[in-house]
Amino acid sequence: MSSTPDRPLLAVLRGERRDPPPVWLMRQAGRYLPEYRALRAEKGGFLELVYDSDAAAEITLQPIRRFGFDAAILFSDILIIPHGMGQGLTFGPGEGPRLTPPLDDGDWRRLTPTVDRFAPIYETVRKVAAALPPSTTLIGFAGAPWTVATYMVAGQGSKDQAETRRLAYRDPAAFGALIDRLCEVTIDYLSGQIDAGAMAVQLFDSWAGTLSPDQFDQWVIAPTKRIAAALMARHPGVPIIGFPKGAGAKLAAYAAETGVDAVGLDETVDPAWADAVLPKGMPVQGNLDPLALIAGGDALRAAVARIRAALDTRPHVFNLGHGILPDAPIAHVEQLLAMLREGSR
Amino acid sequence: MSSTPDRPLLAVLRGERRDPPPVWLMRQAGRYLPEYRALRAEKGGFLELVYDSDAAAEITLQPIRRFGFDAAILFSDILIIPHGMGQGLTFGPGEGPRLTPPLDDGDWRRLTPTVDRFAPIYETVRKVAAALPPSTTLIGFAGAPWTVATYMVAGQGSKDQAETRRLAYRDPAAFGALIDRLCEVTIDYLSGQIDAGAMAVQLFDSWAGTLSPDQFDQWVIAPTKRIAAALMARHPGVPIIGFPKGAGAKLAAYAAETGVDAVGLDETVDPAWADAVLPKGMPVQGNLDPLALIAGGDALRAAVARIRAALDTRPHVFNLGHGILPDAPIAHVEQLLAMLREGSR
Repeated sequence: MSSTPDRPLLAVLRGERRDPPPVWLMRQAGRYLPEYRALRAEKGGFLELVYDSDAAAEITLQPIRRFGFDAAILFSDILIIPHGMGQGLTFGPGEGPRLTPPLDDGDWRRLTPTVDRFAPIYETVRKVAAALPPSTTLIGFAGAPWTVATYMVAGQGSKDQAETRRLAYRDPAAFGALIDRLCEVTIDYLSGQIDAGAMAVQLFDSWAGTLSPDQFDQWVIAPTKRIAAALMARHPGVPIIGFPKGAGAKLAAYAAETGVDAVGLDETVDPAWADAVLPKGMPVQGNLDPLALIAGGDALRAAVARIRAALDTRPHVFNLGHGILPDAPIAHVEQLLAMLREGSR
Repeated sequence: MSSTPDRPLLAVLRGERRDPPPVWLMRQAGRYLPEYRALRAEKGGFLELVYDSDAAAEITLQPIRRFGFDAAILFSDILIIPHGMGQGLTFGPGEGPRLTPPLDDGDWRRLTPTVDRFAPIYETVRKVAAALPPSTTLIGFAGAPWTVATYMVAGQGSKDQAETRRLAYRDPAAFGALIDRLCEVTIDYLSGQIDAGAMAVQLFDSWAGTLSPDQFDQWVIAPTKRIAAALMARHPGVPIIGFPKGAGAKLAAYAAETGVDAVGLDETVDPAWADAVLPKGMPVQGNLDPLALIAGGDALRAAVARIRAALDTRPHVFNLGHGILPDAPIAHVEQLLAMLREGSR
């Protein structure tokens, strides 16, 4: 008997194949779950829940109890980093996040941090780690510097991230200083999550898809490489999943050059292409279309089969290519899990 | 002396290399030009200008007179097809297009065409063809079926084209019938433009980027293949440029399988990757980031150099990767043209 419990998902991130593939779903702790909506109705706003470590731990565990996913992902938000750096953060009802003041010049030194925003997040990680089933992997996360910067500069979500791309062309030195600072904070923040019990971490580069190849090299690949190197030095053996959503064909360079241990595929990626071009043996995560999950039935079955067949010889963590949508039927999540398990060979 | 005038852009689309590369810019007839804004202020709404063949021909010719681009692209809109099919179309001031009724069930038979919307477009093509300098190529265009369908189904532009992707999963038969009908109309419409004098045509699949690989095969590759085959049979020797914006790595399959003569690269594509994976000798068009054009100076120079170096051995039409933005400085367009011409080897 091994003294460490078997965690299939962690094993896959370290390069083993497992059949059936371990599975979790991005945004699995969220609005499609009635138990989440009930707790949200009782406790109030999204950000209040994130900073309430009892509530956040409970929400993180809800989908594990219901579905037995192979990973729990910390219930939190990619904008905790700018909030921790001193930018104001609100989520108005029915609208996206607002960050104040917008850093339209990229100068993060204008911000004054007043509250330790990371301590309650680490506390949530500790509580989840203590409560998880022994076969479940706990994944911590952060937004990647480029993606976080797009919100900090525009003060909100933005179409095509145009303000931030313009700033990066107009004043690469100022923008580069912001990215450098975000690298430092991200390294410390993910390191803190790992110290608190996270067994793997994911870097969400949700807005990597609008960058030209030059800007992608500078603002996605280089910062990710720096973060991966620092985390690997501080925490050897803790896998890093990089998820540059929308990277298209540039995913191959990202996988080869950044030093991340595994890559996430968004739903637009042909998994057969990914298998052909990614480094041999590199674990991949993904990439069911969230809308195929909503469709269910034959459309779901066909999409799952295509992904499994393409990634048959590679370490594979099954996931969506994007967060689960609030109107995803619980019954379809159950169908998906049954398909994965019945489909094992 | 040849009896046909030399049109460098048409020659490149037929597989010749030219140095410097011929150049045009998507949306080159538009709001960044003071002469366009003046005519617009005098004549009124966008759609009125499109259907006024004197005005539309004049607008098409404005950037040719000012910059001597190698191609004129018809001043029109991708939504002329649904308008012609009987859907109501308006462009409110400061907002995007509205189509009524939205075809939320995909059933185009609900529409009743009452006006021949294509005749004035063909008239514009005839007027431009008669007035163009002999070395300038006249490009006609249409929106590709998938992209046009996203507007028809949602009744407007839509985030991630989610309504239409949902319909396509939920009722592939109904949605497939709409795509089939759009193929037929598009073939006739482009054929009419060619009969009127268009020397090449471009299919804009502006929203190809959000589709899963299965849906991309069904709704982008298959319809494009059908349109390309029909046009090639009716109009041999008239090149077709396919532009599946955001296709990422799936551009390789698009180029290999659809039968288009040339492909457009959006600004997120690494041109060196495209050169490595696209069929040998296939002409490519693109792919300067419109924001690099706005930046001007060194950022513009570096971006142009990267593109030219990557596509040095392939037939290449220089263009943006996306439409020119309304705040693009005229002086930067002049810089770009000077760079291309001084950079010739």
